[in-house]
Amino acid sequence: MLLPTDLTRTTCVIGGAGFIGRAVVTELLNLGRQVVVIGRNAKPVEMPEEVYYVANPGGASTPIIKQVLEAVSEVIDLAYATSPQTSFQDPVNDILVNLPEAVQIFELAATMPHIRKFVWISSGGTVYGRTTASVINEQHSTMPISPYGITKLAIEKYARMYFETKQLPIVCVRPANAYGEWQRPYVGQGFVATAIASILDGRELTLFGEHGTIRDYVHVSDVASGIVGALLKGAPGEVYNLGSGTGLTNREVIEWLTPLANEAGFELHLRVQPPRAFDVPANVLDWQKLHLDTGWQPQVSFAEGIARTWEWFVARHATAISY
Amino acid sequence: MLLPTDLTRTTCVIGGAGFIGRAVVTELLNLGRQVVVIGRNAKPVEMPEEVYYVANPGGASTPIIKQVLEAVSEVIDLAYATSPQTSFQDPVNDILVNLPEAVQIFELAATMPHIRKFVWISSGGTVYGRTTASVINEQHSTMPISPYGITKLAIEKYARMYFETKQLPIVCVRPANAYGEWQRPYVGQGFVATAIASILDGRELTLFGEHGTIRDYVHVSDVASGIVGALLKGAPGEVYNLGSGTGLTNREVIEWLTPLANEAGFELHLRVQPPRAFDVPANVLDWQKLHLDTGWQPQVSFAEGIARTWEWFVARHATAISY
Repeated sequence: MLLPTDLTRTTCVIGGAGFIGRAVVTELLNLGRQVVVIGRNAKPVEMPEEVYYVANPGGASTPIIKQVLEAVSEVIDLAYATSPQTSFQDPVNDILVNLPEAVQIFELAATMPHIRKFVWISSGGTVYGRTTASVINEQHSTMPISPYGITKLAIEKYARMYFETKQLPIVCVRPANAYGEWQRPYVGQGFVATAIASILDGRELTLFGEHGTIRDYVHVSDVASGIVGALLKGAPGEVYNLGSGTGLTNREVIEWLTPLANEAGFELHLRVQPPRAFDVPANVLDWQKLHLDTGWQPQVSFAEGIARTWEWFVARHATAISY
Repeated sequence: MLLPTDLTRTTCVIGGAGFIGRAVVTELLNLGRQVVVIGRNAKPVEMPEEVYYVANPGGASTPIIKQVLEAVSEVIDLAYATSPQTSFQDPVNDILVNLPEAVQIFELAATMPHIRKFVWISSGGTVYGRTTASVINEQHSTMPISPYGITKLAIEKYARMYFETKQLPIVCVRPANAYGEWQRPYVGQGFVATAIASILDGRELTLFGEHGTIRDYVHVSDVASGIVGALLKGAPGEVYNLGSGTGLTNREVIEWLTPLANEAGFELHLRVQPPRAFDVPANVLDWQKLHLDTGWQPQVSFAEGIARTWEWFVARHATAISY
């Protein structure tokens, strides 16, 4: 296993081959960091050559993880084995595949004083649950209505405990709904990707409720810079929202897409179904705390982000590369 | 398996053979309830004859649990496989032995509309974590510093989720430090029992810090009546503190015991060690919410409770029955 030799500017990104992970890796490389990515599968073809890639199908309890953590000074952990939707199908599995992993890696990192910062990625879209607040800050009550949201919240609590009892310098980030280039459509989350792919594929798109739900869409490059901001300047033991601060209904997202689709000669096929009990009606995050502590703020307007994402999907569709 | 036939006034107490469970069973029998106790071991000799006892070493996924829940109208779940202290030794085990069990039983109960109330017992001493508040109410932030406190809190969140998404009529109770007759000494929790047994056995008693920690000691009969109050009148989806509202240091508990010990001709051997990082310095609960919703209030003063507990231990000691 090839690992970098300069410990002081080396970041390990666990789950770095995923949608958000890929953008985080780009951000880190731009900063001049050496990057080690740990993923479950073989190195993806699009991963930049200078990234050290470690395939580790075995999870946090393998000796590989220990070896890698000994060779890096920072960790960003994006790995998660479930999604909100799959967590409903099997809440016990959601516990078993996520909680022991997280606790083992925190426990391990807490024994390594050379690790100067550990950023763990939680979920701003699920930990709060239902709300009447138009914008949610970090003090808002946390009453998740999905097993996924509960395990994410529980892991935040472990993070805080390892900070308080073993001085692990860990920061938790709660991203809103990330969207953008490289997001996978049709997987039960990522409405923008699914909407665009549905248009391009001529597939019917389902809205749950006349307007759907209100979500805080934040472009993946802003998510990545916010995570890296938390890595550089986030206060250990703290939790940070990361969003755009603006809510859009599913219907409004579609209204953004309609002119782009029409201009390119595509039509949109919508189907409205009753709202689902497990969907939180609205979720919009206040990101002032992250801004105050790190200087981060979102850079990509929805107008710009949706256009970039549309174009990316159109290009992939035209060349018949699967999204 | 013998089960009661009158569904409407029958309560199942899971973990009903333990320290608090025993007092809850007494309270329920006094109310005229039929009681089914589920325990991991054989029926304890002291369990009242009229209690239906079901030994179930297999946990929540066994067919026995389903059979019992079908035959009762109420459930009180006191079962927990770890303690704060053991949870530190193996946080992953603390997850594996507690969370799937709780989720499985909530999931099962949520399919049974004949269950009119489910009371799940959390932990007021651990879910809040460190605090600067002199008295803690249910709105206080929850930052546990033990794995035990984190899994207790996570299960509260599952309870809330099953209430919100599947209308499970579940209430969570957060008891403070229960003490009283029948508590086991020397098991890493239950300071009153350990202090009394140490005096009677001539064993050295350890204080962590000159005054030890501040805890809210509530007599087990008050804990039992509070739990039954939550069963009768607690609002589904809610969480209730259950305590005395008064804090005592370990040193003050000893000052209550000293005259009782001296009068009976016993001496106290104290050893002071440095405070432990994982002990919350102070934990005193505000119980007004439970009072407002159910009318419950503590009945046993500490003066009375400590005297009753002392006498019970002395009687056991004199007849050479193990505590």
